[in-house]
Amino acid sequence: MRVMGRETRSIRLSSEGGRAPVPEVLDQTRLPHEVRFVRLESAGDAERAIREMWVRGAPLIGATAAYGLALAARADPSDAELAAAAERLVGTRPTAVNLGWAVQHVLDRLAPLGEPEREKAAFEIAAALADADVALCRAIGEHGESLLRRLDHVSGRNRPLQILTHCNAGWLATVDWGTALAPVYRAHRSGLPVHVWVSETRPRNQGAALTAWELAGESVPHTVVPDNASGHLLRTGRVDLVLTGTDRTTAAGDVCNKMGTYLKAVAANDCGVPFYAAVPGPSIDWSLGPGEADLIPIEERADEEVSEVRGYAVGLGQSSVRITPAGTPVANFGFDVTPARLVSGLVTERGVCEASPDGLAGLYPERAFPEGSKS
Amino acid sequence: MRVMGRETRSIRLSSEGGRAPVPEVLDQTRLPHEVRFVRLESAGDAERAIREMWVRGAPLIGATAAYGLALAARADPSDAELAAAAERLVGTRPTAVNLGWAVQHVLDRLAPLGEPEREKAAFEIAAALADADVALCRAIGEHGESLLRRLDHVSGRNRPLQILTHCNAGWLATVDWGTALAPVYRAHRSGLPVHVWVSETRPRNQGAALTAWELAGESVPHTVVPDNASGHLLRTGRVDLVLTGTDRTTAAGDVCNKMGTYLKAVAANDCGVPFYAAVPGPSIDWSLGPGEADLIPIEERADEEVSEVRGYAVGLGQSSVRITPAGTPVANFGFDVTPARLVSGLVTERGVCEASPDGLAGLYPERAFPEGSKS
Repeated sequence: MRVMGRETRSIRLSSEGGRAPVPEVLDQTRLPHEVRFVRLESAGDAERAIREMWVRGAPLIGATAAYGLALAARADPSDAELAAAAERLVGTRPTAVNLGWAVQHVLDRLAPLGEPEREKAAFEIAAALADADVALCRAIGEHGESLLRRLDHVSGRNRPLQILTHCNAGWLATVDWGTALAPVYRAHRSGLPVHVWVSETRPRNQGAALTAWELAGESVPHTVVPDNASGHLLRTGRVDLVLTGTDRTTAAGDVCNKMGTYLKAVAANDCGVPFYAAVPGPSIDWSLGPGEADLIPIEERADEEVSEVRGYAVGLGQSSVRITPAGTPVANFGFDVTPARLVSGLVTERGVCEASPDGLAGLYPERAFPEGSKS
Repeated sequence: MRVMGRETRSIRLSSEGGRAPVPEVLDQTRLPHEVRFVRLESAGDAERAIREMWVRGAPLIGATAAYGLALAARADPSDAELAAAAERLVGTRPTAVNLGWAVQHVLDRLAPLGEPEREKAAFEIAAALADADVALCRAIGEHGESLLRRLDHVSGRNRPLQILTHCNAGWLATVDWGTALAPVYRAHRSGLPVHVWVSETRPRNQGAALTAWELAGESVPHTVVPDNASGHLLRTGRVDLVLTGTDRTTAAGDVCNKMGTYLKAVAANDCGVPFYAAVPGPSIDWSLGPGEADLIPIEERADEEVSEVRGYAVGLGQSSVRITPAGTPVANFGFDVTPARLVSGLVTERGVCEASPDGLAGLYPERAFPEGSKS
């Protein structure tokens, strides 16, 4: 997508002074206040980018780790060195599933090759992983765009289609396009008038910071609102659909996503406004069936994310202010579960389906529970 | 209520060096980071306290204005001067209904008196207004405490009663006790184990700043959470009731309160958790019947409240950080409407009633719509 008019991806190859190309990534901890691409010169740089959250989002973390292993192969393609680099990369974010998978995928492909072939092959494998994610997001965008056009036709209002989103499920969380925002970008580029209500997404404000910044880069009309405003927007007819991403979706269609998603879904349901989640196939947890969503462990994060707010201060750059009395007890849950009964549909790379065992089984027959099509 | 172990009110009389007593108020713009009582030496000081929001909440604004007029009478009790001071006081916050009412009430009472009697009378009238608000809040507290004890009995859980609140409807918004928090304070003081989930209440964070500070002063166990967390807390059985204040309640029982209240009510309803609002009789708008809540104008406030967050920074004291990209469009609605169908009951100074025309007509027969008891 575009940053200040230039097409880019969240991770890209960059050559400097005739040297071999290296990956570079946007340092997302500095957004939206500073746009800085950082060159990853070594596997150690890639580790640091993941650990310090310059990159975030499962697909982008996976791609960064794959390039990290390619950089390791450039420095020393021996089995021992690759295994050591892989272990360090996997250790950066222990809970990121894509990370382990991507690293193992590169290792498996390099193992049968001779050392001299490994660097070139590793860069090709990493590039293919990144391209596969872009293709997946693009497909979500195509199916989602059709959905937006259908809803725009139904809404029949003489105004842009009003989309409410939560958190950041845009290209910054993937390699390009994003998940929930991919349909928005496609629709906007192809001339459908849209307007996005961006929920700021406390405590880390990924909506106010990242989603608003992404949308501005693509010139998509948008308005940032406090998370508390979403009910009022829905109740007063200002929203035509809610569209969010998902961190994990059960085989039954329950959506586990950033804290606050359930509030939007339950209010949308109360107001007769459709609620959709954009679901990449790899994020579906086929091990969880109906009634099992509450088995998903909900991460509890650092208190400071709640008691302090990070932003930009004139003369100081990025800094934080404390909003609670000193020593106030706080709780910081990362995610919540939206039951399938509140979800109008799931937008996957294979099409849009009902949020149900049958709906998902229809699109992913090879993965569905044996009982999926019967329940 | 207590501040650092000392009983106080949000407005109180203070004598210094044998001089005539003057009112002093907590400067709420400095809370929770600095506790400072400010002496109001003149009607001009009272105007400034209201305009600059050192005081907030309809009852407290009314009491401050009444004392402001008393200070005006001390300086010059002539009709002309009192009328001029009244006009300046009423102009400080044009939309505050209590303000105009309190000022007119004092003026009306002073009009028949001779000038030498006016200062003393004005201070007595102002004190009576403040006391009347305290009595009203105390009565809400009594009825609400019974409700909490009933719900605690029903919940039958082996844990403190779990109350989720929103914004600040505590003693800082009134003269003492508060509305939604009055039952909590009474229950806690009388030995019922309670725990309050405090929703931070973006954009101004009155929950994180004021409610948390109030509860700490009374040693009521509490935890501050992002507004987004309330759905997860409700869905996972961590809340026994939601209890909020109200800015305006229709004769049909619809509750207009701080933005975000509706989201809590609709989620509570989805989860089978009761939702109550604490409703002082004077905040009921008897002119609005069933289906008319959306006639209430919803204030749109300054963009900076959304795009910037104010708090405390080490070495800087109170300061702000910007959380959006520069120039991002934002919207900032002050309130939302929770339909009566989502409200389990209203806690008034006359008792707890159903959120319906009949429920309110039963408690306020003298004010109800003629058709109230039939609809």
